[in-house]
Amino acid sequence: MTTSALFTDFYELTMAQAYWKRGTNEVSVFDMFFRRNPFSGGYSVFAGLAPLLEAVTEFRFSPEDIEWLRGLGQFEKGFLDYLADFRFSGDLWAMDEGTIAFPNEPLIRVHAPVIEAIIIEGMLLNIVNFQSLIATKSARVWLAANRGKVLEFGLRRAQGWDGAMSASRAAYIGGASGTSNALAGKAYGIPVMGTMAHSWIMSFPDEEAAFDAYAELYPDKSVFLIDTYDTLGSGIHAAIAAGKRLALKGKSFGVRLDSGDIQYLSGKVREELDRAGFTEATITVSNELTEEIIESLMLNKAPIDWWGVGTHLVTGGDEASFTGVYKLAARPDGKGGLEPTMKLSDNPDKTTNPGVKQVWRLYHEDGTFKADVLALEGETVRPGQERRFYHPSIDHMNFSFSPAKAEPLLKKRLSGGSVCPNCHGKDGPVHLAETRTRVREGLERLDRSYRRILNPHIYKVALTSELRKIKRDFLKIYEK
Amino acid sequence: MTTSALFTDFYELTMAQAYWKRGTNEVSVFDMFFRRNPFSGGYSVFAGLAPLLEAVTEFRFSPEDIEWLRGLGQFEKGFLDYLADFRFSGDLWAMDEGTIAFPNEPLIRVHAPVIEAIIIEGMLLNIVNFQSLIATKSARVWLAANRGKVLEFGLRRAQGWDGAMSASRAAYIGGASGTSNALAGKAYGIPVMGTMAHSWIMSFPDEEAAFDAYAELYPDKSVFLIDTYDTLGSGIHAAIAAGKRLALKGKSFGVRLDSGDIQYLSGKVREELDRAGFTEATITVSNELTEEIIESLMLNKAPIDWWGVGTHLVTGGDEASFTGVYKLAARPDGKGGLEPTMKLSDNPDKTTNPGVKQVWRLYHEDGTFKADVLALEGETVRPGQERRFYHPSIDHMNFSFSPAKAEPLLKKRLSGGSVCPNCHGKDGPVHLAETRTRVREGLERLDRSYRRILNPHIYKVALTSELRKIKRDFLKIYEK
Repeated sequence: MTTSALFTDFYELTMAQAYWKRGTNEVSVFDMFFRRNPFSGGYSVFAGLAPLLEAVTEFRFSPEDIEWLRGLGQFEKGFLDYLADFRFSGDLWAMDEGTIAFPNEPLIRVHAPVIEAIIIEGMLLNIVNFQSLIATKSARVWLAANRGKVLEFGLRRAQGWDGAMSASRAAYIGGASGTSNALAGKAYGIPVMGTMAHSWIMSFPDEEAAFDAYAELYPDKSVFLIDTYDTLGSGIHAAIAAGKRLALKGKSFGVRLDSGDIQYLSGKVREELDRAGFTEATITVSNELTEEIIESLMLNKAPIDWWGVGTHLVTGGDEASFTGVYKLAARPDGKGGLEPTMKLSDNPDKTTNPGVKQVWRLYHEDGTFKADVLALEGETVRPGQERRFYHPSIDHMNFSFSPAKAEPLLKKRLSGGSVCPNCHGKDGPVHLAETRTRVREGLERLDRSYRRILNPHIYKVALTSELRKIKRDFLKIYEK
Repeated sequence: MTTSALFTDFYELTMAQAYWKRGTNEVSVFDMFFRRNPFSGGYSVFAGLAPLLEAVTEFRFSPEDIEWLRGLGQFEKGFLDYLADFRFSGDLWAMDEGTIAFPNEPLIRVHAPVIEAIIIEGMLLNIVNFQSLIATKSARVWLAANRGKVLEFGLRRAQGWDGAMSASRAAYIGGASGTSNALAGKAYGIPVMGTMAHSWIMSFPDEEAAFDAYAELYPDKSVFLIDTYDTLGSGIHAAIAAGKRLALKGKSFGVRLDSGDIQYLSGKVREELDRAGFTEATITVSNELTEEIIESLMLNKAPIDWWGVGTHLVTGGDEASFTGVYKLAARPDGKGGLEPTMKLSDNPDKTTNPGVKQVWRLYHEDGTFKADVLALEGETVRPGQERRFYHPSIDHMNFSFSPAKAEPLLKKRLSGGSVCPNCHGKDGPVHLAETRTRVREGLERLDRSYRRILNPHIYKVALTSELRKIKRDFLKIYEK
C-alpha cells in the first residue's frame, strides 16, 4: 500500500491551493456513501476500514513528491511548504468494518479542514470502494454455496498486485475460508490452500504417475486435478487408482474439476468415487464460478464440497466497481460553526442528504433489522418510542415504527488525526476474524428476502422528520 | 509493486517442493497466451512487459517470507534453503509491449527450470492480464472518440492502489491523453489533468462565486463544473458570466458536464456558449462513459471536446479480467532436450498448442496485417513465399498466402534471468511514449473491420503445417 499523498486526483491539489491562497481552510464535513448495492443485490458489506485508517494516518508528501509538484510550475512555494508538513488532523467516524450497509447512508463521515478532507478523498474511496465490492461479492458467493467452503483463487486474474492482496483480505471478511495467495496468507493471517496445476500432470508421462508422485509427498493433502486430458475417460480412473494406494496408508484424497459441465461431471465423478468405496473423497470445482452458477448447482444438488472461485470473486466479475462517493454535507457557516449543504444534480439519484448525520439501525423484537434511519447528529432514536420515518426523496412514502433496539452505527475512529482508544488498530488475524464474524452475524439478522440473489426486497433507509425538514427547505430554494 | 516471491499461488510452492524432492528441475517451456479478446472485441493490446521484467528480475523470498513458510510446517529445511536463494535464472521471450495481439498466440514464452517457471506464474499473469485488459479498453475508448482526447479519471473507482496505478499506465499506453492520478503522473511521466469538484462549488454561496474564485487563481486552466444544481438553469449561465470576466483578460475557459443526458445537454450548452460568443470554450463530459456510449455520442455529433472516463476505463467495466493463461508447452525429454506437450480438457477451447513456438505476423503489400501464424521455433516464414496455413482446431479451414513482409513477434527479453542488451529496461516517460506510439501504429495497420466495436471480424491466427502435424499426432493419442 502506498501512503504517498500524491495518490490523489490532481484537481484536489489545484483546489487545495485555491483554498490555501484564499485562507479558507476551516473544518467541513464530508460523507462517504454509496448509491446502489452492487450485483443488483439487496445489501452491501462495508470493508476496508482498518487499511484506510492506517493509510490516512500515514498519508504524507515525500520530499520527492514535493519536488515533482514544484516541477509542474503550477504551485506556489508557500503552498508546497504547507504540503510538505501535511498530515490529516481531522476526526473520522465510520461504521464497524464488516457492517451490512445500504445505499445512501454514510459509511464514513470526515470532519476536517477542507484541504485535508479533499486530499484524502481519492485514497479513501479507492480503498473502501474496492474492499466493499469484494466483501459483498464474497458474502453472496458464500450464501449461494449454502454457507459452504469457498476458496479464493484469484491472484492471476486480479487487477494488479493490490487488486489481489486487498481482494484476498475482503473475500475472507465476506465469507471465503481461505486464499491461494501465499503473500495474503502471510500479510493477513488468512489460511492458504491449493491443489495442483495442469502443468504438474503434463510434466509426467501420465496422470497416474503424476498423482502418485504428489500423493507420496503430500499424503494428507492430495487433491487430484482430473481434467487435464479426459475427466471421465482417464482422470477419475487415475485418481481412484492413486487413491487406492493412499487408502492402504489410511489416507483420504479429493479430486478437482476445472472445466466442462460441472453439474454433469460432478455427479458422474461422485458415482465413480462412491462405487470405488471412496464416499469420503471430496470434490472441488472451479472454472469461472459466480454466485448464480453456484446457487444453480446447489439447487440441483450437485455433490460439491469445495468451491474454488477466482476471477469473479476478486474483480466483481461483470460489476467491477462500487458506487461509493464522498460528498460535502456541511460547510463553515462563517461564525465558527457548520451549516448543512446539499448537491442537486440533473440525475435525481445524485442528490445528497444535507447536514451532519448519524445512521441508526432499528431492530425488531427478534433481533432482525427493520430499517436504517438517517438522523441529525444529536438526535436520538430511542427503543420503545414510536416515530414516523420518511423516504429520502419520495414524499408520500413513510412508515411508523417503535424499535425494540436502536443502534447508532457511526463511531469515532480518528480524533485529531490519530486512532482513538478502542478504535480499530492495524490489521491482523484477530481483527480480521472478528470482522468476518460480524459479517456472518449481520447476514443472519437480515431477512432472507433482502439476501435473495434475484430481485431482492429493498431495505428501508429513511430520514427523521428533522432531517427531512432541512432537505425540503433546500429543495424549495432550488424550486424557484 | 511487490517483489516478494510469496506473491504466488500456494500450490506453486507445494508443487515446487515436490519437483525439488524428486530432483526434477530441468528447463521447461511455458507459453502465456489468452483465449479470447475482451469486450467482444476484435483485437487486444499487449501491455505490462516493462513492469513484468522488473518484477521477475527482483522476485525474491525475504527472510520473513521464509520464516512464515517454515511456520506452516509443510516445507523441508533443504527446500526452504533453496527458496532463500531463489532467483529467476531463465530466458524470457515476449512481444514488444504495445503490440496488437490476438487469441491463442503466445505473448510471452518462458524457458526456465520448472520450479522457477511455476513460481513466477501468478505474478506474471497478474501484471500482464490486468495491463493488457486496460490498454485494450483504452484503445477502444480512444478509437470510439475518433482518436480524441481522453482523460483517465478512475483512481477512486479502481481496484486498490495498484489497480489505479497500473490502470493509469495502461490507459496511457492504449490512447488516453492524461490521468487525474497525480502519483501515476510522477511515477510514469503521464500528463496530469483535472477540473474541479462539486464540493468546491458547494463551499461557496453560489456557482458564480465559485467559478470566479477559481478563475482568478487559474485563469489559464479554468474548466467550470456546471451540474451541481441545475445545468441549464444556473450552471451554464454562471460559467458564461465568469467566462466574460476571463475574456476581459484575454483568457478562455471550458465547462464540464457530469450528469444528465449528455447528448441533449452538450448540444444545449454548446448553443449557449456559441450564442455568448464563446465558440472556443471547450466541453468536457464524464459520468460512467463507455466506448459504446462515446461512439453513439460521436455518431450523433455531440459537440464534445474532452472525454473523462473513469470506472470503465480503469476496471474494464462489465469485463474485469483478461483471459490470459500460462501453460506448459514443452517438457524435458529425459535426454537433455525438450519435447512438446499438450493439454486437452473437456472444453475444446482450453486445448493448447504444443511445442516451442514463434509467432509470425504476415503483412499485405500496403503494410496492413493479414494474419498471424504460429510456427515451430526454427521455422522461418519468408516474404514472397506462398504457403498454406491452418486453423488451430477446425481442420478444413485454411488459407494460402504469400506475405509482403513476415515478422517474428517474440523477442528475447531476459537471458539467464537478466535483461539483455536492447531489451526494454525500466519504465519511464520515453519508454511509455514509444509504447503508446506502437499501439497507435498497430491500430492503423489493422483493418477497420477488426476494430469495429460491435461484431468485429475475426483476425486469423493459424498454424504452419509443421506445427499442425505435431498437434494432430497428440490428438490421435487421445482419440484412442
